[in-house]
Amino acid sequence: MCRWLAYSGSPILLEELLYKPEHSLIDQSMHAKLGVGTTNGDGFGVGWYTPGGRPEPTLFRGIGPAWGDDNLRELARSVESGLFLAHIRASTGTAVQQSNCHPFRYGRWLWLHNGRIRGYQELKRSLVMAVDPDLYPHIGGSTDSELMFYLALTFGLEREPVGAVERMVAWIEDAGRHNGIEYPMQMTVATTDGERLWAFRYSSEHSSRSLYCSTAIETLRLMYPDNPALQTVSAQTRIVVSEPIGTLVGAWQPVAESSYELVRPGVDVTGPFRPELPATADPERGAQLVAGQVTEL
Amino acid sequence: MCRWLAYSGSPILLEELLYKPEHSLIDQSMHAKLGVGTTNGDGFGVGWYTPGGRPEPTLFRGIGPAWGDDNLRELARSVESGLFLAHIRASTGTAVQQSNCHPFRYGRWLWLHNGRIRGYQELKRSLVMAVDPDLYPHIGGSTDSELMFYLALTFGLEREPVGAVERMVAWIEDAGRHNGIEYPMQMTVATTDGERLWAFRYSSEHSSRSLYCSTAIETLRLMYPDNPALQTVSAQTRIVVSEPIGTLVGAWQPVAESSYELVRPGVDVTGPFRPELPATADPERGAQLVAGQVTEL
Amino acid sequence: MCRWLAYSGSPILLEELLYKPEHSLIDQSMHAKLGVGTTNGDGFGVGWYTPGGRPEPTLFRGIGPAWGDDNLRELARSVESGLFLAHIRASTGTAVQQSNCHPFRYGRWLWLHNGRIRGYQELKRSLVMAVDPDLYPHIGGSTDSELMFYLALTFGLEREPVGAVERMVAWIEDAGRHNGIEYPMQMTVATTDGERLWAFRYSSEHSSRSLYCSTAIETLRLMYPDNPALQTVSAQTRIVVSEPIGTLVGAWQPVAESSYELVRPGVDVTGPFRPELPATADPERGAQLVAGQVTEL
Amino acid sequence: MCRWLAYSGSPILLEELLYKPEHSLIDQSMHAKLGVGTTNGDGFGVGWYTPGGRPEPTLFRGIGPAWGDDNLRELARSVESGLFLAHIRASTGTAVQQSNCHPFRYGRWLWLHNGRIRGYQELKRSLVMAVDPDLYPHIGGSTDSELMFYLALTFGLEREPVGAVERMVAWIEDAGRHNGIEYPMQMTVATTDGERLWAFRYSSEHSSRSLYCSTAIETLRLMYPDNPALQTVSAQTRIVVSEPIGTLVGAWQPVAESSYELVRPGVDVTGPFRPELPATADPERGAQLVAGQVTEL
Repeated sequence: MCRWLAYSGSPILLEELLYKPEHSLIDQSMHAKLGVGTTNGDGFGVGWYTPGGRPEPTLFRGIGPAWGDDNLRELARSVESGLFLAHIRASTGTAVQQSNCHPFRYGRWLWLHNGRIRGYQELKRSLVMAVDPDLYPHIGGSTDSELMFYLALTFGLEREPVGAVERMVAWIEDAGRHNGIEYPMQMTVATTDGERLWAFRYSSEHSSRSLYCSTAIETLRLMYPDNPALQTVSAQTRIVVSEPIGTLVGAWQPVAESSYELVRPGVDVTGPFRPELPATADPERGAQLVAGQVTEL
Repeated sequence: MCRWLAYSGSPILLEELLYKPEHSLIDQSMHAKLGVGTTNGDGFGVGWYTPGGRPEPTLFRGIGPAWGDDNLRELARSVESGLFLAHIRASTGTAVQQSNCHPFRYGRWLWLHNGRIRGYQELKRSLVMAVDPDLYPHIGGSTDSELMFYLALTFGLEREPVGAVERMVAWIEDAGRHNGIEYPMQMTVATTDGERLWAFRYSSEHSSRSLYCSTAIETLRLMYPDNPALQTVSAQTRIVVSEPIGTLVGAWQPVAESSYELVRPGVDVTGPFRPELPATADPERGAQLVAGQVTEL
Repeated sequence: MCRWLAYSGSPILLEELLYKPEHSLIDQSMHAKLGVGTTNGDGFGVGWYTPGGRPEPTLFRGIGPAWGDDNLRELARSVESGLFLAHIRASTGTAVQQSNCHPFRYGRWLWLHNGRIRGYQELKRSLVMAVDPDLYPHIGGSTDSELMFYLALTFGLEREPVGAVERMVAWIEDAGRHNGIEYPMQMTVATTDGERLWAFRYSSEHSSRSLYCSTAIETLRLMYPDNPALQTVSAQTRIVVSEPIGTLVGAWQPVAESSYELVRPGVDVTGPFRPELPATADPERGAQLVAGQVTEL
Repeated sequence: MCRWLAYSGSPILLEELLYKPEHSLIDQSMHAKLGVGTTNGDGFGVGWYTPGGRPEPTLFRGIGPAWGDDNLRELARSVESGLFLAHIRASTGTAVQQSNCHPFRYGRWLWLHNGRIRGYQELKRSLVMAVDPDLYPHIGGSTDSELMFYLALTFGLEREPVGAVERMVAWIEDAGRHNGIEYPMQMTVATTDGERLWAFRYSSEHSSRSLYCSTAIETLRLMYPDNPALQTVSAQTRIVVSEPIGTLVGAWQPVAESSYELVRPGVDVTGPFRPELPATADPERGAQLVAGQVTEL
């Protein structure tokens, strides 16, 4: 069902995380351990912010398996970034095409997702109609994941990220339950505005896909006083992953069920994730109404 | 802006029309003469009905240029069909991906298009919302061309093909003009249910892309009594093309501005094409849809 | 390391074997059981002979995973053949590109391979130089598998198939051992001239990849007198596979270590596979000499 | 027949040359003016050196048309380099696959080519055999262009670049004439070791494809004292192109027939290009190779 990785910290070559570690993300494209399937060969993508460069992230996405992509390997050797997201895809039914590869981008924002909306084909039209009409033309592909992104943007992602994702999920759960789908949402999500990084772990049935966050560097330094890599990396460095990479015991902490992590300069934040419908939500919905709700948020 | 070809007649190998003639469709992928540009390299597609096979057509579509596709060349040498559509694409802005390659298919129907909806990005959302909700999940790509197909299906393509296409065009023109777009529609279209073949030539400004239909075989036989190929092909055989292929003088007749051609067993039909908005009370269209449309209008 | 399937018998739709059976070949592209790895996602190919069509087989090959290829699924639904080869690839190092996808074709011949030449990079140049200079320009890709094909053609595949493959293997083993490679060859191979089908199972260390041949239809009819499918299929029908498909107990017989099977109209043949160097082989080799040897064969 | 661009100078974003100028290289992929054809849609490639990064250049190559490649557009916006080569391909017969896309790389070297070896299919085998056996395994594709690179490396490109290219051309001309091909070579070539950049313009018939070098910045500053861009770019900056980009009158000088340009820190060098066969006793080339060549000659 996809694997992903989000990095925030001292600028590093992408290959340091995508290729070099044991059980790296690229290795997981063929040999995932904790996913629904072992193979994530339906495309891939990386989005990164360039230190000192333009504020918008750069995207590189491909439709073949990550394990065999020569261009990805090349770029990973020469692109350095202090904030990047990477994703390997296992399609849950939508087409294998570049516009369906994660991460998705809107302005300075990136978004990626592991999981699915159950009953997506039935729910899709009403969910699409709830997207802000001004955002609608930016939808480029056909996945549930990208639609979640545009719903979150509709519900205020840029102003109030955690609340917007909570409203997005509540909206989808509400739509699902109106259509007899008990547990519509299964997700781990990473999103960033180029400065802060949010990771979410949630599912309607409270049995969410795995998600791990790297242990605080200070703690790791205490655990491994002789490991030189841990001395040079900045204390702010954090990695969030679908499943652990590398072999360092104690390096990974599971993200709690129904919670989020915020990684940013300064102190990280962890909190509960509680889907909540927008205050003025009308069960009959309709895009105009949604637009109005967004204005009020 | 795309070139296309539609064939109905005695079963032939696809290569007889796609590759062998001088200025064949594949040649037009690099050297079109009558189009907006000379290059049609943003993907291609062929849809064909198999004599004695299943009633649904088979699709073969690719995202690279047709001129270099080894698989297309291979198939053209071995696939025989008495009814097929072929298309080479020049994107007018939407992504180069397989789900955007023509022809599009719904059940036994195929559809392809040359031209564009002007102001598509502004109009898209309201047009998508006019598609019958039961048909909506079948939309696979992001093009104006495919959306026209699903609007035509919404307006009764399967029951009353010419009228449905007229309603689809009127609907788009109406939406366009509400958005300040004077001439929203530019199109040549071919569609078929596996037995009959319709070709349309129309634009809001009555200055439509070129379209040609092959001269009646009986006439060609009189013109070229010594041409053996013309003696063996069935009298019913017809080819419709964006621009003429081959070198036989007199073999092609321009399709009149704002008209359609119906090719079928028996006598062909030619008629005027007059866009007309659906009567909003039409009970044959989906009730929800009509209600929604009326509300919106 | 690749999975493959070869079919000879009553004409059937390709999908009957590629998609419909439990653990079909396409399923094996993601979930192989008996291979070195479970994933065979580095391209695929099908080559088929068209009943009543031109004698050369048609090729359809792609560089993405077979499991997600819409065109393959389409073709499998409409292409009918009484003799075809299909292959899903797991690269052992050479590029993922169409010219490296099996089956390979020369004239009326098709060839596919599972396994590898160990030390291929070291041996490649001398092996390429041994290919008949007239055949050399037909080599399109960079794999060991295609090179084996052209060596077999050099050594007389068209005239004496089993002997030619034995000479090809002996030649490679000889080259390998001159380079300190004890067990250079690991292979299962299928090849056909459009009428007869040969399958080979061999490795230098006599521990070859799995290969199975379908049980004789007469035997299966006795075992399953109530199975209607077995009554309609011709008695000559045979399928050779890297690993069994379907669930019919007793339907598959392992091909013996170091042996070959010949499937043809009339009685099938099974025999030992014994690599043997060409009689006039000179250990110093050189293309001219090889050409001379070929003349003498 | 391909278009290309080579840049050496102040680090700039790739898009400054690939996309922004009027008649940029990407525009030439669909609308070349001085080439054999207008379309260069059979793949593309960029190779660049990263300021302060590893000494090996990074490659990004694709098999679709450059004009529609989203990843190329993305990278061009964020990759900055002071030395890069870019190429858009129009195949002269060899397969459209990544391993055939320019530039080609060996160690720190890059190489690209416009033109062809006439009679390549007949000459290929003997030319391949002349490649140093230690270099042979590095040949990844099937083009004449890459083979020219490996022959130039065989003849000493790393030690004596101009002389090695002269020997390579002489060797191919000699092979061609032994096969009745009067004018075997048609080429413009760029190659670089990461510090210096060589451009060659030559053809056996002395009627070579177009090649232009940007006018010296000092001269341009005198011509356009009010152009701010010319004040900020370093005096060492040079661009070599198959056909001029941009609209600045006087900005481009044709490279003379049968000559080369060397761009490097300090004074550029221009000289005549005079193919000359290697002395067969040359001890510096690989001994086996020379022995083989001599025997063959």
